[in-house]
Amino acid sequence: MKACTMSEPGGPEVLSLVEVDIPTPGPHDAVMGITAAGINRADALQRQGRYPAPPGAPAWPGLEAAGTVLAAPASSLLTPGDRVCALLPGGGYAERAVVDASLVLPTPPGLDDVEAAALVEAACTVVSNLDAADARAGETLLIHGGSGGVGTAAIQIAKARGMRVIATAGGPERAARCAALGADVALDHRTGWVETVRAEGGADVILDVVGAAYLEANLRALRTGGRLIVIGMQKGARGEIDLGTLLMKRATVLGTTLRARPLAERAAIVARVREEVWPLAPDAVRPIVHATFPLERAADAHRMLESGEVFGKLVLTVG
Amino acid sequence: MKACTMSEPGGPEVLSLVEVDIPTPGPHDAVMGITAAGINRADALQRQGRYPAPPGAPAWPGLEAAGTVLAAPASSLLTPGDRVCALLPGGGYAERAVVDASLVLPTPPGLDDVEAAALVEAACTVVSNLDAADARAGETLLIHGGSGGVGTAAIQIAKARGMRVIATAGGPERAARCAALGADVALDHRTGWVETVRAEGGADVILDVVGAAYLEANLRALRTGGRLIVIGMQKGARGEIDLGTLLMKRATVLGTTLRARPLAERAAIVARVREEVWPLAPDAVRPIVHATFPLERAADAHRMLESGEVFGKLVLTVG
Repeated sequence: MKACTMSEPGGPEVLSLVEVDIPTPGPHDAVMGITAAGINRADALQRQGRYPAPPGAPAWPGLEAAGTVLAAPASSLLTPGDRVCALLPGGGYAERAVVDASLVLPTPPGLDDVEAAALVEAACTVVSNLDAADARAGETLLIHGGSGGVGTAAIQIAKARGMRVIATAGGPERAARCAALGADVALDHRTGWVETVRAEGGADVILDVVGAAYLEANLRALRTGGRLIVIGMQKGARGEIDLGTLLMKRATVLGTTLRARPLAERAAIVARVREEVWPLAPDAVRPIVHATFPLERAADAHRMLESGEVFGKLVLTVG
Repeated sequence: MKACTMSEPGGPEVLSLVEVDIPTPGPHDAVMGITAAGINRADALQRQGRYPAPPGAPAWPGLEAAGTVLAAPASSLLTPGDRVCALLPGGGYAERAVVDASLVLPTPPGLDDVEAAALVEAACTVVSNLDAADARAGETLLIHGGSGGVGTAAIQIAKARGMRVIATAGGPERAARCAALGADVALDHRTGWVETVRAEGGADVILDVVGAAYLEANLRALRTGGRLIVIGMQKGARGEIDLGTLLMKRATVLGTTLRARPLAERAAIVARVREEVWPLAPDAVRPIVHATFPLERAADAHRMLESGEVFGKLVLTVG
């Protein structure tokens, strides 16, 4: 089959369409015919050689895909022909994916395959982290990178959960689009955000993709009992922390990743997404697809991703 | 009544016995006649002017005391003459304390008043933090400062909870005493501890009083999914954190304090201590009293506390 993968670590230009062997399904695996594959920042890190695929995963990137079931283990509820999407440990940039059946979800009615492929990974990231932080209705959630794939999903999911949402984004136009998605307060991070968040009463939970550069400001923005969840390090990994602030606020800092988790944990997260998010699609939660590219143009998609101009998600179409 | 308090912020010498007014009880308050008052490091910080008493608390220090009920609100189950101990927001260094009845516990049979006064605050600290970290039987708990008041209680409570305990202490003799209290592994922190903890498989939970100086090493010592609880900053407040390690380990850093919590939370912690720890005293959990001093010699007690030679707790006796 065709897959889009890296000849060597490097820039977007190292991505090209090649012929690969379809992975051999194990006894619990389904085989999916892929029509759409979501693009994530982690794919760009993997392309650069900075985020290697976990053991057993294909070498080509792609953490989420949608399409139809071609073959399914007897132990699963899947049937060939089912419209599905899946959380993948890798391998979405291809014509087919072989994936443990516990990571496969029915595509929600009302979403097309491109939309479903744009939602799986972000929904899993948002739900697992809101759960880890015990984020509750009525609490205030601060979302950094509100205009990204995770951010646009987080705004919608958190609002549906009954939270008050403050989102930051790069520039007034992007902030306005976060507000249109449901954010109660949307801020241009270039003009500063800490004092505004504090003036709004602070954040109970912060979902952060920025990392070190925001660490101190995030602690300042937290309310007593607040939880800072770091899921990305777009601006640095090493940062100073004031334990005095942490203690006085009785605050929590959590770091999480999704792909490195044991299968059973990922399957539990997928089940939670099916329970919490799937009933909300497409009305209360609708993935924001900025652009699609055919699989063979994954390099162009990565260039666009890295331009910083994307609002929401990019998706590859296959076949 | 007599209380021992500070004329001004300073060293142990600023503590002296003075005559003070007994605080006026509110409708939910009990009045305790104090026979013993535990000493905590927070008292020394308060004496130095670095940890002011919360609003409404007496100016004189003392976070825990034991004695008898002199008067009780009708809404409580307390009766004058009951042997009790209490978690105080301050004011233990005195002949009487006025305290919300929800913070009062019966003194466990088998503990004398000195022992009870040595256990309340440490037990509340340990149980609330083990609960906050969701510390479970079979997990490994690393306790820094295993020879302190909190540490000696933590070793015993965690063992009773079914955890594996690694304790650090200053010197081989103090480490040996931690082992005698039940620690499965006891280490002299002066000879390094990180590699030993890693060789032992790492820690699921770390209870740390050291703060910044141990922050990086603590993260290295954590297992995947581990939780670092910082409850003290004996060696610094500002430390660097590697978010990459935090994310890859899916680790959590919590800061907590006890005294600053709302009354309802402190009352819930006291209730948890009564449920989990009180049935374990005096056999499985016995407070370690290093020395007692009469109330008027609180200054000498603080000098001993700051010598670093105390193993367990110091207690003031009253009357």
